[in-house]
Amino acid sequence: MLKRYFPILTWGRTYDRPTFEADLVAAVIVTIMLIPQSLAYSLLAGMPAQYGLYASVLPLLIYAVLGTSRPLAVGPVAVISLMTAAAVSKVAVQGTADYITAAVALAFLSGVMLVVMGLLRMGFVTAFLSHPVLSGFTSAVGILIAAGQVKHFFGVKADSGGLYEILSSLWAHLAQTNVATVLISILSLGFLFWARRGMKPRLRRAGVSPRIADILTRASPVFAVAVTIALTWIFGLEGRGVAVVGTVPLGFPVPTLPSFDPALWQELFVPALLIAIIGYVETISVAQTLAAKKRQRIDPDQEFIALGGASIGSAISGSFPITGGFARSVVSYEAGATTPAAGAYTAIGVAIATFTLTPALYYLPRATLAATIFVSVLTLVDFAALKRTFSYAPREGIAMVLTILVTLLRGVEDGIAFGVVLSIALHLWSSSRPHVAELGQVPGTEHFRNVERHRVISPPGVLSLRIDESLWFPNARFVEEMIYDRIATDQSIKHVVLNCPAVNHIDSSALEALEEVNDQLKDAGVRLHLSEVKGPVMDALTRSDLLTHLGGQIYLTHHDALAALAPNLTRQTASQGRCETHR
Amino acid sequence: MLKRYFPILTWGRTYDRPTFEADLVAAVIVTIMLIPQSLAYSLLAGMPAQYGLYASVLPLLIYAVLGTSRPLAVGPVAVISLMTAAAVSKVAVQGTADYITAAVALAFLSGVMLVVMGLLRMGFVTAFLSHPVLSGFTSAVGILIAAGQVKHFFGVKADSGGLYEILSSLWAHLAQTNVATVLISILSLGFLFWARRGMKPRLRRAGVSPRIADILTRASPVFAVAVTIALTWIFGLEGRGVAVVGTVPLGFPVPTLPSFDPALWQELFVPALLIAIIGYVETISVAQTLAAKKRQRIDPDQEFIALGGASIGSAISGSFPITGGFARSVVSYEAGATTPAAGAYTAIGVAIATFTLTPALYYLPRATLAATIFVSVLTLVDFAALKRTFSYAPREGIAMVLTILVTLLRGVEDGIAFGVVLSIALHLWSSSRPHVAELGQVPGTEHFRNVERHRVISPPGVLSLRIDESLWFPNARFVEEMIYDRIATDQSIKHVVLNCPAVNHIDSSALEALEEVNDQLKDAGVRLHLSEVKGPVMDALTRSDLLTHLGGQIYLTHHDALAALAPNLTRQTASQGRCETHR
Repeated sequence: MLKRYFPILTWGRTYDRPTFEADLVAAVIVTIMLIPQSLAYSLLAGMPAQYGLYASVLPLLIYAVLGTSRPLAVGPVAVISLMTAAAVSKVAVQGTADYITAAVALAFLSGVMLVVMGLLRMGFVTAFLSHPVLSGFTSAVGILIAAGQVKHFFGVKADSGGLYEILSSLWAHLAQTNVATVLISILSLGFLFWARRGMKPRLRRAGVSPRIADILTRASPVFAVAVTIALTWIFGLEGRGVAVVGTVPLGFPVPTLPSFDPALWQELFVPALLIAIIGYVETISVAQTLAAKKRQRIDPDQEFIALGGASIGSAISGSFPITGGFARSVVSYEAGATTPAAGAYTAIGVAIATFTLTPALYYLPRATLAATIFVSVLTLVDFAALKRTFSYAPREGIAMVLTILVTLLRGVEDGIAFGVVLSIALHLWSSSRPHVAELGQVPGTEHFRNVERHRVISPPGVLSLRIDESLWFPNARFVEEMIYDRIATDQSIKHVVLNCPAVNHIDSSALEALEEVNDQLKDAGVRLHLSEVKGPVMDALTRSDLLTHLGGQIYLTHHDALAALAPNLTRQTASQGRCETHR
Repeated sequence: MLKRYFPILTWGRTYDRPTFEADLVAAVIVTIMLIPQSLAYSLLAGMPAQYGLYASVLPLLIYAVLGTSRPLAVGPVAVISLMTAAAVSKVAVQGTADYITAAVALAFLSGVMLVVMGLLRMGFVTAFLSHPVLSGFTSAVGILIAAGQVKHFFGVKADSGGLYEILSSLWAHLAQTNVATVLISILSLGFLFWARRGMKPRLRRAGVSPRIADILTRASPVFAVAVTIALTWIFGLEGRGVAVVGTVPLGFPVPTLPSFDPALWQELFVPALLIAIIGYVETISVAQTLAAKKRQRIDPDQEFIALGGASIGSAISGSFPITGGFARSVVSYEAGATTPAAGAYTAIGVAIATFTLTPALYYLPRATLAATIFVSVLTLVDFAALKRTFSYAPREGIAMVLTILVTLLRGVEDGIAFGVVLSIALHLWSSSRPHVAELGQVPGTEHFRNVERHRVISPPGVLSLRIDESLWFPNARFVEEMIYDRIATDQSIKHVVLNCPAVNHIDSSALEALEEVNDQLKDAGVRLHLSEVKGPVMDALTRSDLLTHLGGQIYLTHHDALAALAPNLTRQTASQGRCETHR
């Protein structure tokens, strides 16, 4: 029991030196990657840069104790930071103490929600997010974040929010462009883009070992940060109007409890829920993927608790919502992280940085951080997925496009809410019109096929319909109408046989519909039969009274039904051996 | 084309004398039934009594022209009247001109919505209402309406709204009980309840023909009305504090256009939509049922238009939303209505009444109308359905109970909205955990069954899973997790074969999941295979690139798969003839 909730008790006892070394190496690389990111995503969340560091210590320690994924690296993440900014800006003004209070409350709330979901094993909440919606949403968020950074490249002020607000206010302020800032930006962007593509091969050619080359590439944002800090300091660019991070207090703020202001909590409830779910989905997917590669196991319910604990840890550190980072976790996986302890070592690394490097951050240009964000969020934008979805299921492709548009124009919360509703509506719509095939017998066999696709024979007076869908409320009425329609069009029909091998469920709405159909058909002098009803469905039907007053019979196979209802048709095949279905 | 939108052109041309007589008889009976109901439901809607008559003429004429159901009788209906009162009370005060204006706008709006849904063939909107939700909602509305009448029995004022408000304010006002009113109520209620049960057999024993006995029973509310009018007049009960309908202008108000106040329309949009959909669902079910009994055809899309037209007709008559009445339609069916013309004759009957009987209505006690409502709405309350649903699907039973409670306590709009969301969530939840069976081979056969239910053999290193559900976003993650879990638990697995005879769809979320699974399994040294994939699903998969980089194969039958992956196991059966599945 205790082990279930504290996985560390399991992997901890077999912890040895080689494991330690592997974890340590991974930790060093992740730390190098995490420091600039945490500063950048903190600004993205509308918080002072150093709060990113605060959010990258305690949460990692807590996850190391509670988490089941070995390489997962938690901390500030772009999407969640933007959602934080969107939610908190509604209740407080950036730069005020209230803003930080609200961000802390948000982290605490979503943390508590995650823990509750984990304890109640509510993994199904993630089921509401279809892939097109999630992928479309993520792409749109990537674009919003990237667009939001452009103002920093020009060193101008501009509104955040929807894409339109961002671009229009950017355009309006472009006149105040600061040249020094633009130079810093060009330098950082150029270097970072080059590092992404050209750096590794160049280092290899220079004879650097692949391992080192990889680490150096990952460290490129740190170089950019270091170099631009130096430039700003040397040339006093701060005096030339380059916006810098400014004074950062050494060490950590005193841990505080989040404010228990019910009004604030009410306002933050929905955003906290969205942040919890989206953060969890993003995390669990990467955790699943990396675990599966090594046939390792993760516990989705425990991951709720671990992430929730981490998020509450961030709140206690006086910081904003965090979750598992995709890129960061992949790096930690590739760097050979073997246990969650790697995260703990990363936390120590960040803590050391917080006590030592913060003075240097004074001269760190915001433009550089904007550049690191810009380069990394572009990976969120995935138009290939859009193309794929369109070619596979155009309707879902449209849903994806609409989700992207709504997110871009109306912001993250409307975007995700719209997407969820749309994909559910879309599914209900398509399952409200199930595929129904009228069956005929393949001459000389005991097989029945769609009359529209095969040359088959169907006996007069018997209508065979195969319903290729579970029967439940969205299609209950459709099936009812369809049958009524058939018997009204063809007055010669005396028997309707529903062939149900593809019916996995019959919910109570569909049951009601079937009973209606059965009753009306009786009055109309038609008998309703069922064939090839699955075991579980049959079990359910016996709990209803449909079977007791069913006009017709229930047949094990469709051939049995036809043999009984239209003997002359099927006699020819009667000699052949019975062929049971696979159910 | 014209015939599609004006069914009268079809049945009208074959209209002959016997048809006319049949329709006329039905019309007379329905008229007798409709007059007191229309007055009563008008009060229920918070309108002056006579508006019920106004709503029972033009709409019936319009439906006769546009409708496809022969016996359907449109007009004021209890559920819709209550929903009208609930919606209009939010924007205007009862008894004011604004209230009537709003009710007219509501009728017009929902009418237009219905017409639009019909033209766009949006029948699927009804798919969102599961049977438990609808039935629970209807029962709750029945209780709310009945409870709302009690104040009239005691002749006291009391609030409407949720059950709690109704009962508590009733209790508070009970001191002002009016004795004369109570006597009228006891008389009417006693008579009406007796008429429901005892009247018909008594008449039959008195030698009255069944037909006449039936008509007389249907007419019992009219007797109640006539007698209590007489009593009130003779004994001057009005002076004794018995609330009466009072002065009713002779004839009809001048037709008017509904107000085009955008603010009002915005406030009424959602209620209008709910009224449109609920009214339509109730109507279409009875229309379907009665048509099917005689193998007649109705056009669901055209019914939208016909009901919409009728509702707009009610608005033009300066009255409130109406729809097809269940009891009324059944009566008209049993009375032998053969064409929609019966409705037109009913309209004429009501029109005559409006010009002749209205003066008599002055002395009609509201208590009597309350009694007629009370007795008729009790048929809406169907706890048997609750019991049925519980025994068939407990989860849906709970949804039903919750819908009832929310409707009772928070009112109709919250009730129905809550129910819809709940039944969708419930469905997503249950389909997020599909039934998955691990398969083994029935020795000596080519059949594969659930290892937990049958004595079967499964070869080492091959995991066979049959997924009994379409693969779509709510269960995509579940399937992914389940497979990862299996290969992590049993490291000996080298092949995973998904047996898909029950998979009717694979949406893009599930496709994404399968591609993820395929990739991770490759890295884990496991090959993913599919067997018995349905034609349509296969067609879809060929549009994706899953098949191109699938680690394993796709097999026509599961036996083929096992024969290829574990030859020794299946050789014994190889001699037997292949048995194709029924797909």
